[in-house]
Amino acid sequence: MLRLKRIGISTGRENVAFLSRACPTYRAAAFEGQGKVEVLAGSKRLVATLDLVDDPAILPPDCLGLSEETFARFGQVEGSDTRLDHPHPPKSREGLHAKIAGRELDEACFRAIIDDIAHHRYSKVEVAAFLVACGSFMTTAETLALTRAMADAGEGLHWPDAPVVVDKHCIGGIPGNRTSMIVVPIVAAHGLPMPKTSSRAITSPAGTADTMEVLANVEVDLNRMREIVAEAKGCLVWGGHVKLSPADDVLISVERPLNIDTREQMVASILSKKKAAGSTHLVIDMPVGPSAKVRSAEDAARLRKLFEYVGDAIGLTLRVTISDGSQPVGRGIGPVLEARDVMAVLENRADAPPDLRERSLALAGRILEFDPALRGGAGMARARELLDSGAALRQMHRIMELQGPPPRVATLGSLSREVVADHDGRVMSIDCYRLARIARLAGAPFDPGAGIDLLRKVGDPVQAGEPLYRIHAEREVEFRFACGLAAEASGYTVNGNGKEPL
Amino acid sequence: MLRLKRIGISTGRENVAFLSRACPTYRAAAFEGQGKVEVLAGSKRLVATLDLVDDPAILPPDCLGLSEETFARFGQVEGSDTRLDHPHPPKSREGLHAKIAGRELDEACFRAIIDDIAHHRYSKVEVAAFLVACGSFMTTAETLALTRAMADAGEGLHWPDAPVVVDKHCIGGIPGNRTSMIVVPIVAAHGLPMPKTSSRAITSPAGTADTMEVLANVEVDLNRMREIVAEAKGCLVWGGHVKLSPADDVLISVERPLNIDTREQMVASILSKKKAAGSTHLVIDMPVGPSAKVRSAEDAARLRKLFEYVGDAIGLTLRVTISDGSQPVGRGIGPVLEARDVMAVLENRADAPPDLRERSLALAGRILEFDPALRGGAGMARARELLDSGAALRQMHRIMELQGPPPRVATLGSLSREVVADHDGRVMSIDCYRLARIARLAGAPFDPGAGIDLLRKVGDPVQAGEPLYRIHAEREVEFRFACGLAAEASGYTVNGNGKEPL
Repeated sequence: MLRLKRIGISTGRENVAFLSRACPTYRAAAFEGQGKVEVLAGSKRLVATLDLVDDPAILPPDCLGLSEETFARFGQVEGSDTRLDHPHPPKSREGLHAKIAGRELDEACFRAIIDDIAHHRYSKVEVAAFLVACGSFMTTAETLALTRAMADAGEGLHWPDAPVVVDKHCIGGIPGNRTSMIVVPIVAAHGLPMPKTSSRAITSPAGTADTMEVLANVEVDLNRMREIVAEAKGCLVWGGHVKLSPADDVLISVERPLNIDTREQMVASILSKKKAAGSTHLVIDMPVGPSAKVRSAEDAARLRKLFEYVGDAIGLTLRVTISDGSQPVGRGIGPVLEARDVMAVLENRADAPPDLRERSLALAGRILEFDPALRGGAGMARARELLDSGAALRQMHRIMELQGPPPRVATLGSLSREVVADHDGRVMSIDCYRLARIARLAGAPFDPGAGIDLLRKVGDPVQAGEPLYRIHAEREVEFRFACGLAAEASGYTVNGNGKEPL
Repeated sequence: MLRLKRIGISTGRENVAFLSRACPTYRAAAFEGQGKVEVLAGSKRLVATLDLVDDPAILPPDCLGLSEETFARFGQVEGSDTRLDHPHPPKSREGLHAKIAGRELDEACFRAIIDDIAHHRYSKVEVAAFLVACGSFMTTAETLALTRAMADAGEGLHWPDAPVVVDKHCIGGIPGNRTSMIVVPIVAAHGLPMPKTSSRAITSPAGTADTMEVLANVEVDLNRMREIVAEAKGCLVWGGHVKLSPADDVLISVERPLNIDTREQMVASILSKKKAAGSTHLVIDMPVGPSAKVRSAEDAARLRKLFEYVGDAIGLTLRVTISDGSQPVGRGIGPVLEARDVMAVLENRADAPPDLRERSLALAGRILEFDPALRGGAGMARARELLDSGAALRQMHRIMELQGPPPRVATLGSLSREVVADHDGRVMSIDCYRLARIARLAGAPFDPGAGIDLLRKVGDPVQAGEPLYRIHAEREVEFRFACGLAAEASGYTVNGNGKEPL
């Protein structure tokens, strides 16, 4: 028997157990070089990757350690009697190996794999193997099977009173593209239910949940979310409380550091979550541009077909709209700055970024046309009417009020520096990826007031010494990191004499 | 600045750095969700996967921790000033992503990848992605390029005085197949140089180095190895002191837990090491059987072609021999028991396992035919002559003497239990994988006296209650584990009435 000890090390979504190298059970437990063990206490069982500890101050030889998250998942108290068993191979192991060997899997195989992943029975290395194997060969039938398996693995939402539940999703990569916060109040003002759950940023400078949190509380539970939607037809909340696709959370945690992003995985990830969230109608915004996720019209066409095929098969009415992904949308990058842009559009202010406004209207228009009364192109006009009349703004205030005040008052970071053009010319292009990285280094989204305020967009003339954008940060260390990266390369390409593009 | 701290946790071949979640540098360092950082001290730089620590007793907020092996690789003293930088993507990153995307890589790409892997710049997850991507699609030209890159990444051995340097390699999976310890003294007695470096067991119950260590010291450095080979023409030493293929050590550390074993990777792994070891002529022993690594004649033929193609291209004269892989070889499984079998063969004792003797003679014969004087089939007769005359035994004693006495006297484990047949019949098959697992659980190779002594082989009649094999162990915990697994299923299939196979 080994005494259970909580080890104050974070291992995220991978279960990790710690054992002293001096522990007599060690050699038998690590016996197959598999690096995995099963931890048992009473009827509880948990599969974990095994790390060996040499320092008795971290873990005495008669103890078994579990990392923070693993300890929480195991749910036993410190000091409990535990023992180790040899790892029973996950029941999906054969399917995983068949996929690695390049074979096509049936839906039962995907269900077994997704169940094991959702329950943290795979190591990070096994998850990576699954992702790469899927990336190398996957039929459309498999993408559909994976989508279904992922949708069913989560806790689904149901909206029994609403025959039509709409949603939108942007496949991302474009900083500042905060259209959801404008589309939701427009659509809700029209009366279509749009219960929007959003993520926080993982690799970007702001997710919709981060930006909405500047204006209102976003951490509401499922019951409160239902009440808000019943009353205001829409909401803009963080999806973290609702486990729509627990397997996807694990897949993403490995996909991101690897920086791989396969089409099939993306389709399964997005559509499984929308399905689990109870959506019936969905608009996908697909920005195309040289530094966006989708970089060519051919790519976009292929991806659109895949979305439509899978969406149709799982009973989602789905429209894909292609949008300009050549530069950031609006002027702000980072929660506070993006919230400023959003409110400027809703308030119909003269300085509202026109691109953010037009994109939002186009998307809202497409969604409104899911209403049979607006079919055939009347959506855009209705969206404009709701925005211009102030109805959308009133709806947004209603939603903010129902969600409650933000957890803290966020203001623009007081440290700031302008990045200037080093020669006269015209802005030819803006590297979305680089701008996002600079904003991220400045502290966004952890510091909501950090980010970038764009002072020139593509096509604008600029003279040497005039500002291209302003970096904002809340803290010195982050500020220096961001300014350092911007000094290496601003992310702007300025050409010509400022009169004509080359 | 952060003070360097050594963290008494073992992370093997993956560099891992630890940072307190309360450290102000944390958010900027972990900024891209990449999970990797660069650690700097003076001109030293090291790429590591980042883990966050919540417990200040493990790591205070003003410190940077490195795991045992990472600390050793970094080579700085505790308390040194260190700082973190954003990870510069490894220079092979593009190549890795191209391979993941299914493209063919050129040799320069493989060299960059192997260099990054050998220098621990890849996380385990990236290594897994590379392995699976290679497993899913790899041309023969790529296998050759990978082999060359891996061979050149290590410290090569050179034998300037010997135009012919022979070696053998068994692709494994068959317990007890300890032919090297018989082949080396035969070949060396003939006068062909055979400087054998072997591994310790990773997932098997004994490697050649583990078994040889029962008889002699195997940890000799490169200079001593040269002296021994100069004097006795052969040696049987552990290869761990010679870094023949550092990238392969990293690849294996991920491949094994994943339990994937692709053909191309196997060929590159084996041939790169032989090339780096300075071998000119090589015999590959390929056991084929239902529980061996290679399971069919078609598989064997394809793999043989690949070995021959790559071997030829890198200048290795190479012969592949197919052998029976249907059951363990000899009677013992585990270091002490296998050493017993080896010496019985060399001493021409009546109880020597005939299968181990015949396989060794066949392999030695093939190797001896690399001597122009013995070409055309005279090798086997010469091998038999050297074994029967006692010349091989004398050569073995000479090698043992030169390598020195074993570090400790290993004796057969005193805990033992017989596993018996539960009905009359004839042994139809023995599951190599299961027997290896039982021997491993009994403590082999860590306890050299642990293992399995086979009392029946395939074809032998047995009556209910008669022993099939005997488990030996040195320690109580291991003994119970092994007996438990054997009780679940013995690994033997016994059919019929003991007179005729079904």
